[in-house]
Amino acid sequence: MSSFYPSWEPEAPTVKTEIPGPKAKEAIADLDKVFDTRSLNMLTDYQKSSGNYIADPDGNVLLDVYAQIASIPVGYNNPSLIKAAQSDDMINAIINRPALGNFPPKDWADVLRTGILKVAPKGLDQVFTAMAGSDANETAYKAAFMWRRQKERGGPGVEFTEEEMESAMNNQAPGASQQLSIMSFRTAFHGRLFGSLSTTRSKPIHKLDIPAFDWPQATFPTLKYPLEEHAEENRKAEQDALAEVEHLILNYHIPPCAVIVEPIQSEGGDNHASAEFFRGLRALTKKHGVLMIVDEVQTGVGATGKFWAHEHWDLPTPPDMVTFSKKAQTAGYYFGNPELRPNKPYRQFNTWMGDPARALLFRAIIQEIEKLDLVSHTARVGDYLYGKIEALAKKYPGEFQNLRGKGMGTFIAFDSPRRDEFLKKAKSLGVNIGGSGQSAVRLRPMLIFEEKHADTLVDVMEKIVTSWK
Amino acid sequence: MSSFYPSWEPEAPTVKTEIPGPKAKEAIADLDKVFDTRSLNMLTDYQKSSGNYIADPDGNVLLDVYAQIASIPVGYNNPSLIKAAQSDDMINAIINRPALGNFPPKDWADVLRTGILKVAPKGLDQVFTAMAGSDANETAYKAAFMWRRQKERGGPGVEFTEEEMESAMNNQAPGASQQLSIMSFRTAFHGRLFGSLSTTRSKPIHKLDIPAFDWPQATFPTLKYPLEEHAEENRKAEQDALAEVEHLILNYHIPPCAVIVEPIQSEGGDNHASAEFFRGLRALTKKHGVLMIVDEVQTGVGATGKFWAHEHWDLPTPPDMVTFSKKAQTAGYYFGNPELRPNKPYRQFNTWMGDPARALLFRAIIQEIEKLDLVSHTARVGDYLYGKIEALAKKYPGEFQNLRGKGMGTFIAFDSPRRDEFLKKAKSLGVNIGGSGQSAVRLRPMLIFEEKHADTLVDVMEKIVTSWK
Repeated sequence: MSSFYPSWEPEAPTVKTEIPGPKAKEAIADLDKVFDTRSLNMLTDYQKSSGNYIADPDGNVLLDVYAQIASIPVGYNNPSLIKAAQSDDMINAIINRPALGNFPPKDWADVLRTGILKVAPKGLDQVFTAMAGSDANETAYKAAFMWRRQKERGGPGVEFTEEEMESAMNNQAPGASQQLSIMSFRTAFHGRLFGSLSTTRSKPIHKLDIPAFDWPQATFPTLKYPLEEHAEENRKAEQDALAEVEHLILNYHIPPCAVIVEPIQSEGGDNHASAEFFRGLRALTKKHGVLMIVDEVQTGVGATGKFWAHEHWDLPTPPDMVTFSKKAQTAGYYFGNPELRPNKPYRQFNTWMGDPARALLFRAIIQEIEKLDLVSHTARVGDYLYGKIEALAKKYPGEFQNLRGKGMGTFIAFDSPRRDEFLKKAKSLGVNIGGSGQSAVRLRPMLIFEEKHADTLVDVMEKIVTSWK
Repeated sequence: MSSFYPSWEPEAPTVKTEIPGPKAKEAIADLDKVFDTRSLNMLTDYQKSSGNYIADPDGNVLLDVYAQIASIPVGYNNPSLIKAAQSDDMINAIINRPALGNFPPKDWADVLRTGILKVAPKGLDQVFTAMAGSDANETAYKAAFMWRRQKERGGPGVEFTEEEMESAMNNQAPGASQQLSIMSFRTAFHGRLFGSLSTTRSKPIHKLDIPAFDWPQATFPTLKYPLEEHAEENRKAEQDALAEVEHLILNYHIPPCAVIVEPIQSEGGDNHASAEFFRGLRALTKKHGVLMIVDEVQTGVGATGKFWAHEHWDLPTPPDMVTFSKKAQTAGYYFGNPELRPNKPYRQFNTWMGDPARALLFRAIIQEIEKLDLVSHTARVGDYLYGKIEALAKKYPGEFQNLRGKGMGTFIAFDSPRRDEFLKKAKSLGVNIGGSGQSAVRLRPMLIFEEKHADTLVDVMEKIVTSWK
């Protein structure tokens, strides 16, 4: 029973067959004829999924702490979201999809203010809406290039030259800014389209064969755990990383006009850095007139125990742009500086520019988060879960390495010496968990994850490692 | 009264105020504080819009032949789509958005087969789903690069080298294929993200300040109208264009692994070419082992009087990939060749990979198109409309230049010597029309556009030009 809605979800997982079971196997073989299924994790019965539990066609019902790669915020078949989906406004938004830049709905300002902008990070009061994380980041990059070139040109009123216009049409400088770049960090993940993939540095399989821009990457500090035992080393790793950032800003042959960073490198292995590191990065970007883009695609919307993970940093000035997607169920980037609006219309534009239906859903999600107080709930449950895993790590040395995410809500991870086996075994014991990077087990519960779910999860984790003894 | 649904839409446009009227102006000023409104065309009341008619907050109701930049297929508030949006399946898809590559819904094969794949172009039986036109094209480009590099490498079983993996992580060759390109045509439009924008050649304002790949562009033939009076010149223009394509394939310093082409250049000014030209392009790409990607984002889904515009060409072999979006309300690319599936999973992947809710909507749209026989309807109404505009062009020489789109359904355009004024005046007379390129008036009615709507449109067009006498 869920504490939020009685009889919403089962009391415990049910595992009836191996996963995939016979029904799923048959359906997968059929699906594979028309759709690539090699990345398929679990064929899902979304009708039978509820709350924290994901179901499959064979009657298996698993506690889901992967949550569609961290993108289900308030549970499967959430009653409040059902109501929102049945509303006239939603039906209207589904069937009359606007070209938002040209023909916005008459109440678009209201939808933004009571939804997407209600949770805007401090200091950022405007939004450009997009479709998913990749284009959210790429449109932020475009804004950064336009902003910097405008400064170099001498302001918004300075017209483009004939040479710029002609060379842009030929993909050449000076019109196409081949002399500027976006800096990212090693092991970062920012998306898979051509610009975003150029800043993604997670794994070769994501990048192989795809042309990329010659943009710089700085080293993300590799912290040693437990943090309290390696304070000095970690501080040095962070200082070295910041020194490299500054060196690249000053010396890279295609200097960056922006740096993009995740609060926690989420695909690259759940790599954390201290608030001090991020304050240092903000100081460096300010000092050198480089924009700071915070990619909150995976960390945003409550899972770290703050609505935005970068609230943990206590920055003296806000980031220049913050991108979002996943749990927001829509995407885009926030900004505050009016200079980040391009100097002319149609420079940043596309037909749909997001999806009002998804913006309405995000509004309903925000209302649900507020009604159930899910951000502080997640902070509390996260502390509880962290404590239990910490105890487990002490009990089974070596099996739960580099436990991280203390004080970061349920955004917790550890390294497993046999990670892929760990994930597979978890499924057979009733829990759906994801991995990241080379060896991390990443926990991405929904915001309705409770202490009792943490107990179930930790029990299963203990069963996994004892099954290996 | 609509012939399709009685009392669905008004009999005629209503213009009560200037557009924007006082209510719209106030709302736009408010919206501009948080959302860039400089590209705003008309603030829209989607609750009051119906069928072919778009409404605004001041009570103006216009015949809409722009249709959200060609992306409303079967009318505002279509009764069949309302029913689809109210269905349990739709509500489920809205609130439980899956990571499709990992956790597809159990009936995903069925949703694809009865929807997206039911209308797949001949010879293409697989689909990669995406979010919008830009990422549909970019994922097709990625497939092209992977395909070509795999051939060069010696097949799907040949492993990546250490050097490839390392250099890919540094955005350098050989891992990142800096030695291959995508060829497009001058005045083409294929999207606005970094890879797609590198192939877009529409206007400087779309490209300025954004880094681009050094990829080749061929000249798109510029046809002279009326076609029957310039047969010889036009044939030569097309042969010259094909010769340039072949020259670039053989000689461009970063040779193309694919050519992308729109059946009608839709943003670039409604530029047409003959079926013979496209057959020639198919022959050249076959001859040189270059993939042919047909971008049907704007031309697809019925508006040209065929479901896909490239059906007009009678190709001996299908294109390698066909991309779609807009009227499909979802996006992606079709392909037939199994070699276009990357050799390993996770090379072509992202969290959402489209949106099942939008796939369900496309299925309902396809059902509506079939039920009302809207493709042949559009072919017929298009011929009727073309005839009437042709007569108008004879009556007012100079005002309707280079009329084009004969036999292409309602996908009709002409050049106006004072285009922007034309569009503005049309609005004041009750019709919402869009432009493209430098001087084209582009007609993009929905598939439910009827002869009587054509009459209304042509009346207004005549009023516009007589108002200038």
